[in-house]
Amino acid sequence: MAIVFLTITPLGTATPSVSRYVAGVEKVLQASGLKSQLTAMGTIIEGDLDQILRVVRQMHEHPFSQGALRVSTSLRIDDRRDKKDHTIAGKMRSVEEKLRE
Amino acid sequence: MAIVFLTITPLGTATPSVSRYVAGVEKVLQASGLKSQLTAMGTIIEGDLDQILRVVRQMHEHPFSQGALRVSTSLRIDDRRDKKDHTIAGKMRSVEEKLRE
Amino acid sequence: MAIVFLTITPLGTATPSVSRYVAGVEKVLQASGLKSQLTAMGTIIEGDLDQILRVVRQMHEHPFSQGALRVSTSLRIDDRRDKKDHTIAGKMRSVEEKLRE
Amino acid sequence: MAIVFLTITPLGTATPSVSRYVAGVEKVLQASGLKSQLTAMGTIIEGDLDQILRVVRQMHEHPFSQGALRVSTSLRIDDRRDKKDHTIAGKMRSVEEKLRE
Repeated sequence: MAIVFLTITPLGTATPSVSRYVAGVEKVLQASGLKSQLTAMGTIIEGDLDQILRVVRQMHEHPFSQGALRVSTSLRIDDRRDKKDHTIAGKMRSVEEKLRE
Repeated sequence: MAIVFLTITPLGTATPSVSRYVAGVEKVLQASGLKSQLTAMGTIIEGDLDQILRVVRQMHEHPFSQGALRVSTSLRIDDRRDKKDHTIAGKMRSVEEKLRE
Repeated sequence: MAIVFLTITPLGTATPSVSRYVAGVEKVLQASGLKSQLTAMGTIIEGDLDQILRVVRQMHEHPFSQGALRVSTSLRIDDRRDKKDHTIAGKMRSVEEKLRE
Repeated sequence: MAIVFLTITPLGTATPSVSRYVAGVEKVLQASGLKSQLTAMGTIIEGDLDQILRVVRQMHEHPFSQGALRVSTSLRIDDRRDKKDHTIAGKMRSVEEKLRE
């Protein structure tokens, strides 16, 4: 199980508003059935890494289909193999426990 | 107003669990009074960029005070000057509106 | 043609030195035949995006085979479709020309 | 001594070409006297972290002075305190030695 943080940004879009592209990319993710969480700075996805990367590849392609000529995609993979509970909820729980100490 | 995504990771910590360090860094942020949101892959901070960078500098220092010998800090600044509502909530609203269309 | 910047970091290693892992990952890349450039902060790769992502997937796996329990991989894809000369050398040339102006 | 990898990208520019902005940002860095290396995907800077962050703050501001309305700045700090030779050249040497083994 991996957790991935993803930001997809089209460049040269004439206006600085890119939420239309972000929403299009998010719909591709939602159609994949992968567990994810949208944030103001990118999307967190959890699941099998190979499956995530296949969906990221489709998401990266989407802004081009909407007219973008250049897309910058940033991806951070957190892959941990010594722990069963390597999930978005598990990581949050772990930090929140320590915050209460 | 800027929005910043921040991940602080100590390297060479003997075990792969770093939530203790993450919680320590988060407490520095909470003490700053800046508006922020903790996620499973980093923290989103909103506010005046200079003030954010001062707090990020303190946060980056914290793992060293807990024994870390090497710290990797990733920061992404989204700074938009043509719009009043450039906030975490404003960005979320903008994408969610387009998702409903 | 895409250009990718890639950093692969194992977490929870016995010491803060990770160059052994970085060299292992680099050998996987060199065996792929893809054009690349090693820097002090990551590796720049140029080529067909699908081919690059396949090799990145193998590179990400390598530290686990060397004993790492957790791997953090950061990837930035710069994909530009309006220009033939979207290469490492082409981008450098473009900035260097403007630096001379 | 810290090593920083930095990418500064204006969003919503008229065309996908941003090398004009990149060159402007690079001139701010060159004027600072900090040791740095330009790559096709960003700039590597080495030196005192506080001094680097002051210059990064000026670099981030520059595209706005050239008409940009939104700037996305990505920064990765590699800060290591157990080693004297934590420099761009030192890191390269360390990996290259292991590549020859």
